[in-house]
Amino acid sequence: MDRRVVEVDVGRSVYEANKRLADEFRMLLDSYGVRAYEFMGSPGSGKTSLIERLIGIALNNGYEASSIGYIGGDVATSLDTERVSKHGVQHVQINTGNICHLEVPHIYQAVEKLDLRRLKMLFIENVGNLICPANFPLGAHRRVLVVSVAEGEDKFVKHPLTTRLADVIVINKVDLASAAYVDLDKMERDARSLNPRAPIVRTSARTGEGVDKLYHVLLGG
Amino acid sequence: MDRRVVEVDVGRSVYEANKRLADEFRMLLDSYGVRAYEFMGSPGSGKTSLIERLIGIALNNGYEASSIGYIGGDVATSLDTERVSKHGVQHVQINTGNICHLEVPHIYQAVEKLDLRRLKMLFIENVGNLICPANFPLGAHRRVLVVSVAEGEDKFVKHPLTTRLADVIVINKVDLASAAYVDLDKMERDARSLNPRAPIVRTSARTGEGVDKLYHVLLGG
Repeated sequence: MDRRVVEVDVGRSVYEANKRLADEFRMLLDSYGVRAYEFMGSPGSGKTSLIERLIGIALNNGYEASSIGYIGGDVATSLDTERVSKHGVQHVQINTGNICHLEVPHIYQAVEKLDLRRLKMLFIENVGNLICPANFPLGAHRRVLVVSVAEGEDKFVKHPLTTRLADVIVINKVDLASAAYVDLDKMERDARSLNPRAPIVRTSARTGEGVDKLYHVLLGG
Repeated sequence: MDRRVVEVDVGRSVYEANKRLADEFRMLLDSYGVRAYEFMGSPGSGKTSLIERLIGIALNNGYEASSIGYIGGDVATSLDTERVSKHGVQHVQINTGNICHLEVPHIYQAVEKLDLRRLKMLFIENVGNLICPANFPLGAHRRVLVVSVAEGEDKFVKHPLTTRLADVIVINKVDLASAAYVDLDKMERDARSLNPRAPIVRTSARTGEGVDKLYHVLLGG
């Protein structure tokens, strides 16, 4: 790999340029009537499993598999996309090499491989990382932050920017809460104090608890 | 924040320059007789708790608190350093803003605040991130990769570069293995297939299981 991350001090204009790219991508989606949901969170927070659950609910609610899309960002493997592809949905894998987040050009490349005319909803799973994706919005209509209780109670407080920028906050793996000695109410209060506007949903992708609620928050809200 | 991560294509020389800086830092540590251990892993993998356990063992084994150092990397808070500082050890907090990993210049800044002449061992906790720290060695004598079983079985396979570069691999939170339906033997086989040389230690920072073994692997090996 001859790619490297270099840090430079830049002006506000770079963020604005990035946001403009994201806004243009959202306008493209809107022109096709596609709603997009970006999932961000640590490795192992349960993003893929939640998306699989949501796809299952959508299929049960009469959505055709071909009307659902999935873009999976990952540094090296296609494991997540293989899992999601079993549901018959349109899917594209993006391997970023050692790049720790997706950017809008990645998404444009991926979308070229999807039939946008058939699509109604698009799930974009960012690379597992609780830091960098926050700075690079992709143009999705909702940015969903997933934090697993097994990561410990302090993850919202320790990642204030990511928490503030989320449109929906998911506390996942609640089936592990007692085994992990985690106070769910405290986690939720911490998230709420940083982000007063985002709905907070407690889920277990394993048991299915709370996933219906998350579906309705995303599609109904 | 007017800092942004920009990706550029660069030659092998940048990695070599980075590695040279890290090597120079290790030579500085060697000149003071200090052994340094870098801990890397996802947010919530248990890096801080493991370091606290290791410090406890070192204190029980006759090390003076002032002979132990801790550098804590975090995007925004000093929560981890506050926890570690209660053990009376020398400690420095580095807040990286939105930068997702430590680099050698961070460590030089931190070390200026430590009394190297009194130090015997130095724990460096990288920012919680399973991707980027791998590319930026800091000069520690051992790089310790911590993966929690609650992150799921596939985390080594999904992060092959980080797994390959580790000197010691820790599978942490084994007390949650059954609740998380994780096959520890499979995880260990996956890690071993990517990295045949690193010792693999199973631990629970909560119960203390395996931490003595980790201590001896780090200090004895």
